[in-house]
Amino acid sequence: MVGSGPGDPELLTLAAHRMLLDPSALVVADRLVPPAILSLVRGELRVANKAPGCAERAQREIYAWCREGLEEGRRVVRLKIGDPFVFGRGGEEVLEFRGMGVEPTVVPGVSASLSAPLLAGIPVTHRGVANQVVVCTGYGREGTSPDLIRYHPEQTVVFLMAVGKLPTLSASLISSAAYPPSTRVAIVESAGTPQQRVVLGPLDRIASIAEENGVRAPATIVVGDVVDVLIGEGGKVEGVAEGGSVTGAIAAAAGMT
Amino acid sequence: MVGSGPGDPELLTLAAHRMLLDPSALVVADRLVPPAILSLVRGELRVANKAPGCAERAQREIYAWCREGLEEGRRVVRLKIGDPFVFGRGGEEVLEFRGMGVEPTVVPGVSASLSAPLLAGIPVTHRGVANQVVVCTGYGREGTSPDLIRYHPEQTVVFLMAVGKLPTLSASLISSAAYPPSTRVAIVESAGTPQQRVVLGPLDRIASIAEENGVRAPATIVVGDVVDVLIGEGGKVEGVAEGGSVTGAIAAAAGMT
Repeated sequence: MVGSGPGDPELLTLAAHRMLLDPSALVVADRLVPPAILSLVRGELRVANKAPGCAERAQREIYAWCREGLEEGRRVVRLKIGDPFVFGRGGEEVLEFRGMGVEPTVVPGVSASLSAPLLAGIPVTHRGVANQVVVCTGYGREGTSPDLIRYHPEQTVVFLMAVGKLPTLSASLISSAAYPPSTRVAIVESAGTPQQRVVLGPLDRIASIAEENGVRAPATIVVGDVVDVLIGEGGKVEGVAEGGSVTGAIAAAAGMT
Repeated sequence: MVGSGPGDPELLTLAAHRMLLDPSALVVADRLVPPAILSLVRGELRVANKAPGCAERAQREIYAWCREGLEEGRRVVRLKIGDPFVFGRGGEEVLEFRGMGVEPTVVPGVSASLSAPLLAGIPVTHRGVANQVVVCTGYGREGTSPDLIRYHPEQTVVFLMAVGKLPTLSASLISSAAYPPSTRVAIVESAGTPQQRVVLGPLDRIASIAEENGVRAPATIVVGDVVDVLIGEGGKVEGVAEGGSVTGAIAAAAGMT
């Protein structure tokens, strides 16, 4: 079981890359892993369609494929976006594989929870600005709201999979968790891909700014003063921040272009 | 500026690996990056001695080396352990490099905050067990205690750089932040290296268990029920958990052995 990182193939780990290049491997992925990474697979690739509403069916398909590969004695690589153990249900999959009589090796990946902010130019911690970072989702169990942590000025909060719930989430943070309406928010859309875009605004207006700019999932929401440490010009910027393809910049820095 | 990941060379990103192999690069690192990774450098390598008590001097040395390389028109790679923006002072370094007239490309790495638990077999999130993860350090500014988040049963807390402060930290979590004394704790020592070791115990006794077992920095402390989802046998294990070199397992899974 291996994490693919946030989306840029340059952010695969050496271990993950080697597994994708193994011509004898059966790679079992889902549609959350972008094509640029799936196209590296040299063995057999099967991709489950994890669309909203059919997640459970896709999961059963994934387990069936893995079981099939294991019964055939093949090297099975379960490829997951980001890091397998950060909101990826990786722990549940480990328990399922144990049920099949296999103890999987789990290989960490670069998690979008920390790297999406970085790729947008936001350090999740910064001396004198934030000494803690909280990672949570926008959805609790059964579609309920997650437990909100009360506002703390030296804390950064990262919300994953929350962009569809932004109007409710931002309103609850202000009304129930004591966040000042002016708290800075950044939304990082399609982090680590050529389509990456960063949208900035204050907590009380970020939902409408996101709507005006047509922000869509996958997106990572960063809340806290760290948003303005390196970008955002002290809160002056609202809307889409400048800055091109991070993927291109990383490739250039790595000496590929 | 690039993150090296937690210590296993297999967990370098492709981008980081390529930069270390560039024969024309000046790589500026510090002693936190393990020798197995430093030995990959094919260009010039300079390593600052970031030992306790001389961090500021080491930091000045790092900046001087980077400035020198930039003035010579070389490709300068500032290599940092883990992820540059997760308690790595990466944001401060970006501001310093801007002062030198350079906008660095920042490349995320696998952060020990999330990967050390994974490498120990602990999913930081797990449905029905933990829906949030908090990452913080054991030290506040000027050596004060960090702001402690109050106990929440469905929350995982990861403490970095806190092993030296474990007696005070565990006592404060119980007395000031309402943690039950039986809360499960795992200490992951030297995560992602062949020396990795995992020490388990309840919050009220973990400091003495760590002392008995001679736990030393670098170590990552994980607090919460997720500790027992895949290891620890429901709280029955105290002391060093079984399990060998994760580095070896990853290398084997990646088809290297």
